[in-house]
Amino acid sequence: MSTTAALYQQYREETQKIADVRYANAVLQWDQETYLPPNGAEGRRRQLATLSEVAHERFVTPAMGNLLRQLADRTDLNGVQQKNVALSLLDYEKACKYTAAFVRTMSEAVSTAYHAWIQARTDNSFATFAKPLEALVQLKQQEADLLGYEGHEYNALLNEYEKGATVTMLDGLFNEIRMPLKNLLDSILKKTSPDDSFLRQYFPRADQWSWANQLAGILGFDVNSGRQDISEHPFTTNFNSMDVRITTRINEHDFANMTWSTIHEVGHALYEQGLPENEYGLPLGEYASLGIHESQSRLWENCLGRGKPFWQYHLPALQKLFPAQLGNIAVDDFVKGINKVAPSLIRTEADELTYHFHVMIRYELEKLLIVGELQVADIPAWWNEQYKQMLGVTVPDDTRGCLQDVHWSHGSFGYFATYSLGSFYAAQFWKKVTGDFPNLQANLAATGNTDPLLQWLRPNIHRYGKLYTSEELCKKVTGSGLDSKVFFEYLKAKL
Amino acid sequence: MSTTAALYQQYREETQKIADVRYANAVLQWDQETYLPPNGAEGRRRQLATLSEVAHERFVTPAMGNLLRQLADRTDLNGVQQKNVALSLLDYEKACKYTAAFVRTMSEAVSTAYHAWIQARTDNSFATFAKPLEALVQLKQQEADLLGYEGHEYNALLNEYEKGATVTMLDGLFNEIRMPLKNLLDSILKKTSPDDSFLRQYFPRADQWSWANQLAGILGFDVNSGRQDISEHPFTTNFNSMDVRITTRINEHDFANMTWSTIHEVGHALYEQGLPENEYGLPLGEYASLGIHESQSRLWENCLGRGKPFWQYHLPALQKLFPAQLGNIAVDDFVKGINKVAPSLIRTEADELTYHFHVMIRYELEKLLIVGELQVADIPAWWNEQYKQMLGVTVPDDTRGCLQDVHWSHGSFGYFATYSLGSFYAAQFWKKVTGDFPNLQANLAATGNTDPLLQWLRPNIHRYGKLYTSEELCKKVTGSGLDSKVFFEYLKAKL
Repeated sequence: MSTTAALYQQYREETQKIADVRYANAVLQWDQETYLPPNGAEGRRRQLATLSEVAHERFVTPAMGNLLRQLADRTDLNGVQQKNVALSLLDYEKACKYTAAFVRTMSEAVSTAYHAWIQARTDNSFATFAKPLEALVQLKQQEADLLGYEGHEYNALLNEYEKGATVTMLDGLFNEIRMPLKNLLDSILKKTSPDDSFLRQYFPRADQWSWANQLAGILGFDVNSGRQDISEHPFTTNFNSMDVRITTRINEHDFANMTWSTIHEVGHALYEQGLPENEYGLPLGEYASLGIHESQSRLWENCLGRGKPFWQYHLPALQKLFPAQLGNIAVDDFVKGINKVAPSLIRTEADELTYHFHVMIRYELEKLLIVGELQVADIPAWWNEQYKQMLGVTVPDDTRGCLQDVHWSHGSFGYFATYSLGSFYAAQFWKKVTGDFPNLQANLAATGNTDPLLQWLRPNIHRYGKLYTSEELCKKVTGSGLDSKVFFEYLKAKL
Repeated sequence: MSTTAALYQQYREETQKIADVRYANAVLQWDQETYLPPNGAEGRRRQLATLSEVAHERFVTPAMGNLLRQLADRTDLNGVQQKNVALSLLDYEKACKYTAAFVRTMSEAVSTAYHAWIQARTDNSFATFAKPLEALVQLKQQEADLLGYEGHEYNALLNEYEKGATVTMLDGLFNEIRMPLKNLLDSILKKTSPDDSFLRQYFPRADQWSWANQLAGILGFDVNSGRQDISEHPFTTNFNSMDVRITTRINEHDFANMTWSTIHEVGHALYEQGLPENEYGLPLGEYASLGIHESQSRLWENCLGRGKPFWQYHLPALQKLFPAQLGNIAVDDFVKGINKVAPSLIRTEADELTYHFHVMIRYELEKLLIVGELQVADIPAWWNEQYKQMLGVTVPDDTRGCLQDVHWSHGSFGYFATYSLGSFYAAQFWKKVTGDFPNLQANLAATGNTDPLLQWLRPNIHRYGKLYTSEELCKKVTGSGLDSKVFFEYLKAKL
């Protein structure tokens, strides 16, 4: 008869070893998107597939099931331990629904799709991506069936990124905000639009890269516990809280592209760097949900990073780096320019308002795709039609249309809605922190120091890891649950 | 009753999956030496340890043993298949001697030692490295006992890098060449020494890096199937024959450092890029031995890369990149300078002659260390004394002394002798190819094209993978076995 402490230690060690394999997989994926030579793709595909299979096989053993069920019955675990065990048991029960073959097939299909997506963007043709995408959609449909769901089939996939999110909930949320956003957009478009042409001058790559690293440092990204690189699509990944990697991309003719990508990814990275390191590999060592993760990136990118106080202090350093391009701009004009609202083609470059139309289009598209009401081959036409209808823009080609996002090539269906959830949570957190610390913004303008925000996020959000659900965390921090009206008020006040 | 084909397929699939894990491990190691942020070391240590353990556990199953023994008894395998099975069975029997705990402990000890070595070089103090090194030496002694050996304990470790190499054989080889080399060195040192000061001007880092990549391309390194980066100690690693990575290092005040490091690593990489890709993960998909691997790097670095014909063609490009530093040098003076013989401190920067004294010092040191006749704490004093005695140089500090090589921090004891074997084999291969193609050198001088050498190496050496032992391969290619006299003749003729 083992003591609870011994059983928990056994659970902890084995779970952490499985995490080692998952994190090794993340290193290989990071490498795939940053430094992998083209011909290495095939070997990488199988290495990733094998690691996925190994992590899965090692987790779904009967011994692990017994261990978890035994621990779940013990009454002498502390709160953190109980939560770890309960979440692991849920993961275990879910993982047991997958066969090893399915895990391997999915991993291989994802690698294939990723390289096809890269190629399709080079070709500027959705056709190159269609077949691998079709295979992925079929696998995701199978996955939804494996996982099981109530109501809409898409719920099974939504739940993977945001526990508890459903089509009913999201339809409600989007229906509530769609018209107010549309009306706000219309009223803004009637006014004279601010000038943001200063962002689209020539900004040499090397200088932008230097600024990207300077910026990450300003925001508190710890380069001893992470690094920044370049990739096709910016992302954040981590191999533990002491090795958190972000990527950015550089467009020499669009300064905004790199800048707010970097701030966005730094927001994600600060969350990862703040997760409890002594819970390495265990559920509580991980982020609460993707919605909360996204709230962190948006808080930094938009609430802080598109606000006047930040630039009041930091614009001069930027002007010093780009005197010819930005030397003469006043901070008010800069801030107006970077907050310009205008329907556009690319989600990651969209303003804070129209952004959510990009999300809603993808959300509707995925729902249709998963239940088979839209065929993969018909995506470009459907996409272009929606962009015309909802945003009034004409999509000139697939690269700037339905090929713009990496997510589907990763097999991430059900992900996009978390971007909107992130904006909504971010507005609520921002309201709370600026309410509690009325001098935060004035101090930021005076000193440029963003650390007070980080020091508020650390104990209030980061250190909890996955201890609370999104809803619980939001209530704990702000006193109320998810509320898109706070976001709408924030936006109205700002714009 | 399974057919032989089905059994072989099962063996092949499982062996390749284990290779996937080993190669994933290699990706993590590559990352550790190129891009890992400092605080990521601890997490990486455990991830590497877990992958080592997983690869080992998955290999030493009774099922794998049965499969291999069954296959070894089948008479209807072809020659390649038979060889794969025979080599895998040997590996299997060896791997079964290790416990999972030993594999994990060794992997962790290596990561610890690697980071301590980096730190010790920063501190310029062997003391920082001593304790982790001591732990490693003890583990290597245990490993020798686990593996078993005849004669000298060190034989067990030598055999890991060069199958069949023994203290008796290497003592004989080194005893045979030590005095002739010493006499040749003395006679050279009596003559006026060529001027190589042009190598130690200021060569800006960015320009050297540009040259490193240009040079790799000239030599036929395929950047679609590999890449070059910067690390503390240059190395080559591969994750399959389509993803072969080399590193170099840059000293702004020593042009030779980067240049011949890059050529050396390209030599290794061309071998890896030429291994049979359809034997991925199987023994025949791997290099013959480290001695043969090293013969490839030295053939390119020394026989070709320090020869006049190569520079007759390529010096002008180099002069164009560094007009102020090299614009006025004649090719004869350049070639004399880069072949200058002079006792020195750093092995990787040594000339082709004194190089072998560096190897012999480490070889003698390791023998003493493994049998416990030299204590780790006494290494610096012993080292400095030997450098004084054998090379007549005074070691000014540990970084330029016993901390200069990465190998011990990797747990690689028994490795250094393969460097000398590599030079000896290289001289034999070079004699053969230049004998068979008397115009090779003249054509190289006229066109700069090194491809004919590569196209000779591909079918004669690379494509065999591990089909032959070093000795068999050497006989097959040159008509005779290892013969250090060929190397000595090559050296005498050159110098």
